[in-house]
Amino acid sequence: MHVLVIGAAGMVGRKLVARLAADGAIGGTPITRFSLVDVIAPEAPAGTETRAWAADLSSPGEAACMVGTRPDLIFHLAAIVSGEAEADFDKGYRINLDGTRLLFEAIRAEGIRQAPYAPRVVFTSSIATFGAPFPDPIPDAFHLTPLTSYGTQKAIGELLLADYSRRGIFDGIGIRLPTICIRPGAPNKAASGFFSSILREPLAGKEAVLPVPDTVMHWHASPRAAVGFLLHAATLDTAPLGARRNLTMPGLAATVAEQIEALRRVAGDKAVALIRPAPDETIARIVAGWPRRFDAGRAESLGFVAEKTFDEIIQVHIQDELGGRVP
Amino acid sequence: MHVLVIGAAGMVGRKLVARLAADGAIGGTPITRFSLVDVIAPEAPAGTETRAWAADLSSPGEAACMVGTRPDLIFHLAAIVSGEAEADFDKGYRINLDGTRLLFEAIRAEGIRQAPYAPRVVFTSSIATFGAPFPDPIPDAFHLTPLTSYGTQKAIGELLLADYSRRGIFDGIGIRLPTICIRPGAPNKAASGFFSSILREPLAGKEAVLPVPDTVMHWHASPRAAVGFLLHAATLDTAPLGARRNLTMPGLAATVAEQIEALRRVAGDKAVALIRPAPDETIARIVAGWPRRFDAGRAESLGFVAEKTFDEIIQVHIQDELGGRVP
Repeated sequence: MHVLVIGAAGMVGRKLVARLAADGAIGGTPITRFSLVDVIAPEAPAGTETRAWAADLSSPGEAACMVGTRPDLIFHLAAIVSGEAEADFDKGYRINLDGTRLLFEAIRAEGIRQAPYAPRVVFTSSIATFGAPFPDPIPDAFHLTPLTSYGTQKAIGELLLADYSRRGIFDGIGIRLPTICIRPGAPNKAASGFFSSILREPLAGKEAVLPVPDTVMHWHASPRAAVGFLLHAATLDTAPLGARRNLTMPGLAATVAEQIEALRRVAGDKAVALIRPAPDETIARIVAGWPRRFDAGRAESLGFVAEKTFDEIIQVHIQDELGGRVP
Repeated sequence: MHVLVIGAAGMVGRKLVARLAADGAIGGTPITRFSLVDVIAPEAPAGTETRAWAADLSSPGEAACMVGTRPDLIFHLAAIVSGEAEADFDKGYRINLDGTRLLFEAIRAEGIRQAPYAPRVVFTSSIATFGAPFPDPIPDAFHLTPLTSYGTQKAIGELLLADYSRRGIFDGIGIRLPTICIRPGAPNKAASGFFSSILREPLAGKEAVLPVPDTVMHWHASPRAAVGFLLHAATLDTAPLGARRNLTMPGLAATVAEQIEALRRVAGDKAVALIRPAPDETIARIVAGWPRRFDAGRAESLGFVAEKTFDEIIQVHIQDELGGRVP
């Protein structure tokens, strides 16, 4: 099996590629070849037959180049993130909408050039496709009313994915990821950054800032769970999906207070003491428009699995990022 | 006020323009100028200052030409219809998606060229944005899972409209029209054509074919009601809409049997006898995937009004198309 990963240098993309390379197979089928693309050249995993290169999906010819070698499985993870898509209208639409459409069109063109060709396409969507006000929990059949251009672009990607799949152009599945927690790396300026940093920084012995009340509830899954969603989506029988190709992934609804108590259980009062409340009305207002809790029953019934407690989410971080030890 | 109607030569477009020209004003503001566009040149209403021309919205520069004269109110009714968009993938996406986006981008460019410019944009969407299986009735917050490329393109138009409105690029409102009944003119090959022809043809003393069981239920409004929706959308205060700019219009849920009984009350047994059952499994299967009944409470609370009985819908046809008389 030839696997193409677009967005392979991102946080989730790197973990996905590492996992695929370690497994050497997906759904029992050996992986014979990787094509890895991102705006910066991704790293080729050791001991694999890999072509890794830098490309802008929205530039003329690039999508055709990615698809021309007829990958059997395509992970489309590439996106301009929420904040940047909001700040740069043209760039967000160019990458997130045009890029996605160019990819889908390149697959269609390849199928026309030499039939049959209808690869599995796994598309990462986001809970940012939803916008307040919400019922609690948000049901699987709730409408998409995004409050950002990023969410709009992802929702459009979902619609295109469903239509191209319905027409048999490819076999697509869209997965709406929860907020990924604990996101590794340095603190960033994303409004959602604190959900990770209030755990990640204290686990590293550093101070973290909490800009919202600890009653704020949100929907989380670990990076490892996200990779699990991608792998499951890649091998799932899509027949039971019918025409509804996009799924809200399971996650864990937790308040900030519950996150903090989990940190206390795992790393003690000393870690919790490193969290410094610093109310920020702007962030609090943004977060108030975000979803809190979903009924992800449809994805669960299809076998998608997320963490059940925040203790687990913290343990995943300690195992995968901290070598199994809290310093 | 300068009014631009794109799709002005279509059935609803012509009725809208005739009504606007007859009223000479909209929401109390005199109409000083019309710009009317369609793929064939629309007719200019007598006694008005009108520029009417033929243009393809998706061709380079055409959207800028339409918007460069800074209309205050834009009705975007232009679309490739469902059957053609399904048969011709490229044409459907080019007109219905690219055309809509080019229009929205032209408005944005005009606002950048000389601010402020943020016209009211009324976009006709469709109940084809919904796809089975459905709850009954379909609530306002039900997700869009279209089962045609046309429905997909309209759903994408809705998302773009909401995002451009949220950003203040224009003041948009999308209205999901019910199936228009009684559609005037000759029978066509649309799968939905029989909903109109089983009434229109007998009212004209002609035979009509009924391809489905009379238990089939569907969601209807008259052409006059559709024009009423457009006018109301053009003048409505959009503040209560918040970020949710797209609305399922009210309609009348009726079975074919109820349609036929209304015909009997209005035009007698002689008219009903002209309906010839001729079961068509293909049409029955297509129609089975269509919505039956909506809860349009949100639009109703905003003042949108449709017919309450099929007798009314038939009377509207007799008044507007048959000079008030059943031949």
